[in-house]
Amino acid sequence: MTDPAAKPASLGEFGRIARFFAPLAAGAPGALGLTDDAALVDCPAGERLVVTVDAMVEGVHFLVGDPPDLVARKLVRVNLSDLAAMAARPVGYFLTTALPKSRGDDWLAGFAAGLAQDQAEFGITLLGGDSVSTPGPVSLTLTALGRVAVGAEVRRGGARPGDLVFVSGTIGDGALGLDAAQGKLDGVLDPADVAFLADRYRLPRPRADLGPRLSGLACAMMDVSDGLVGDLGHICDVSGVAGVIEAAKVPLSAAAARLPDRLETVLTGGDDYELLFTAPPERQGAIMAAAAAASVPVTVIGRIEAGQGVRVLDGAGREVTLNGVGWRHF
Amino acid sequence: MTDPAAKPASLGEFGRIARFFAPLAAGAPGALGLTDDAALVDCPAGERLVVTVDAMVEGVHFLVGDPPDLVARKLVRVNLSDLAAMAARPVGYFLTTALPKSRGDDWLAGFAAGLAQDQAEFGITLLGGDSVSTPGPVSLTLTALGRVAVGAEVRRGGARPGDLVFVSGTIGDGALGLDAAQGKLDGVLDPADVAFLADRYRLPRPRADLGPRLSGLACAMMDVSDGLVGDLGHICDVSGVAGVIEAAKVPLSAAAARLPDRLETVLTGGDDYELLFTAPPERQGAIMAAAAAASVPVTVIGRIEAGQGVRVLDGAGREVTLNGVGWRHF
Repeated sequence: MTDPAAKPASLGEFGRIARFFAPLAAGAPGALGLTDDAALVDCPAGERLVVTVDAMVEGVHFLVGDPPDLVARKLVRVNLSDLAAMAARPVGYFLTTALPKSRGDDWLAGFAAGLAQDQAEFGITLLGGDSVSTPGPVSLTLTALGRVAVGAEVRRGGARPGDLVFVSGTIGDGALGLDAAQGKLDGVLDPADVAFLADRYRLPRPRADLGPRLSGLACAMMDVSDGLVGDLGHICDVSGVAGVIEAAKVPLSAAAARLPDRLETVLTGGDDYELLFTAPPERQGAIMAAAAAASVPVTVIGRIEAGQGVRVLDGAGREVTLNGVGWRHF
Repeated sequence: MTDPAAKPASLGEFGRIARFFAPLAAGAPGALGLTDDAALVDCPAGERLVVTVDAMVEGVHFLVGDPPDLVARKLVRVNLSDLAAMAARPVGYFLTTALPKSRGDDWLAGFAAGLAQDQAEFGITLLGGDSVSTPGPVSLTLTALGRVAVGAEVRRGGARPGDLVFVSGTIGDGALGLDAAQGKLDGVLDPADVAFLADRYRLPRPRADLGPRLSGLACAMMDVSDGLVGDLGHICDVSGVAGVIEAAKVPLSAAAARLPDRLETVLTGGDDYELLFTAPPERQGAIMAAAAAASVPVTVIGRIEAGQGVRVLDGAGREVTLNGVGWRHF
C-alpha cells in the first residue's frame, strides 16, 4: 500500500520544530523554547562572546547519502573548531536548515540525533534558528557562540619572526578521507585504512579542549580548514611575516603514511580541523604540557621568519613546489 | 568577443570577501577585518544579547530576477523585524551566502550595495559569516544580533485576558505584493497600486524604532511574518489565552483596500513584518504616544479573552471561516 513516489512523511514546519529541535533547546532558558522571535544570550562581566558561522551544502561539503547524524555532527564540529582556534569555550548554537520537500522526517530524526550526541559531548545547546524549504540541495548554516575572558582570545595576527609553527593531531586525513569516502582509495589501501580515513572526513575532531588551554601560549592561531599551506599563509598575511613548513615534520596518521604520492593532498587538501598556531621556542614546554593535558598530540612543523609568503621544504631543505594552496569556493 | 556561456567574472572566495564584505565590517573592531576564525562581541553590563536567524532561498522567499540590492535589504529587514519584536535594538549581523558558480561578481556587488544601504539606515555592521558555493539556488542566512536591557525584552507569552490586540502599519501588503510582483494584479489594480504593493513585498519596513519603545508597554509581542491570524495564534498558544480579531479593523493600505476579495490573503498571507502585540486598555494612550514618536501608525484590531485559539469576526460580529492560517514550509 506504500507508494514509493509519495511525498515522505512530514510533521510540518512547526511540528518538526516541536518534535526534533525544541528538545535540543530544553537546557537553555534563553532559547525560550524556540517559540519566540529571537533568543536571549547573557554574557558574564569580564567575558566576551565569540561568534562564528559555517555553512555546509550537500554535494559540496558532504556527500549525497552521508548519514544524517554524521552530517549534523560535522556541521557542529567545523564551527566548534573555529571557536577553539580563538581559544574560546563553546556555549550554544543557532541552526538554519534548508531542506528539499523530498527530505522526510526520518532524515531529520537522524540529523537531530547527531546534534543531541554532540551537544552532550561538547556541552552545548541549541539556542534558535530557522527551518525553510528549498528546491535545491540540503543547505545548512550553523552560528556557534562561545565565550572567552576579555583579552584571552588568540587571533591570527600575532605571529612573529622566530616563532615555531605548531599543529595538533594529524594532517591530511580529511582530504584523503574524501577520496576514501568516494571509493577512490579502494585497492590502494587496506579496507581498514580506507574506513579510518573516510571516518576522519565525515567526523572532524575539533580541539575544543586544547584551544582554550593555548590562551597565553599561542601568539597566533587558526584551524586548518582550507589546507595547511594556505592557512599558514593566512596567518602570515595578517601577521606580516613569512612561514616555513618542513614537509617531513608534518604529522600523518598511519593510514595516510601508507599512501604513496600523498604530499600535495596532505599539504593543501584541507578539512583537517586541527589547530595551527605559532609561539616562541621558550613556550614549547608549556605547550606540550597543555597538549598532554588535553590528550591531543602537538607537533612542531616549521618556523616564522621575516618576509612574506609560505615556503615548503623537503627533507633536504629544498623548496617544494605545490600546484594548489587550498580549497577555494569560486 | 564575449561568450555568453562563459563563466561570469569572479574575484574568487577571498577576493570577494575582501572586495565586497570587508568594507561592510570596517566599522566593527570585533569583526577583525573578516580575516579571523570568529568575531568578538561585547555586551555591556546590564544588557543581554538578542539573537535571531532568518534564511531566504531564491524562488521560495524572493523571486528569481529580483534586484540583488533589494534581496539583501529584505534579508536584513526580516531579521531586524524579529529583533524589534523583542524590543531590542540592532547591533550587527553575520551573513552566509551560498551562491551558484553562475552568479557573477556583478550580482554580489549589487547585493553588497543593498547591505551597505541598510547598514547606514539601521546603524548596524557586518560582523562575520561564510561564503560557499552551491549547485542549487541562491541561499542566504542572516544571524542578527541586538541588545536589550535585562528584563526589558518583550516575549510572546505575556498576553492576558482583557488585553487589546494592536498591530503596526498596514496588513496584507506583503502577500498581495507577491501577487503584484508576479503580475497577477495587472489589470485588476492601477499600475501605481501594483507597483506600491510589489515594493512592499520586496522591501519590508521593520519597526526597528517602534519595537524598543514598546518595552514596558506591550505584554506580548511578535512580528507578523507567517500571517496575522496564525501569528496571533502563536501568541495565544504560548500565553494560554484566546484571541479575537475584528476583520473590519485590520488596517489596510489604500492599494490593498481597492482590491476585491482580499480578506483571506490579508489575514493569512504573511510577509508583513509589522509588530503584533497586546496590552491592557489603560496603556493605549502611552502606546499611541510611542507610535507617534516612532512615526508608525498603530491600530487596535481585537482583544484577548480566556480560552484558546483565534476567532475572526466580521463587521456584524459573525465568525469568519478561513481556509489557511499562515504560511508553512512543509
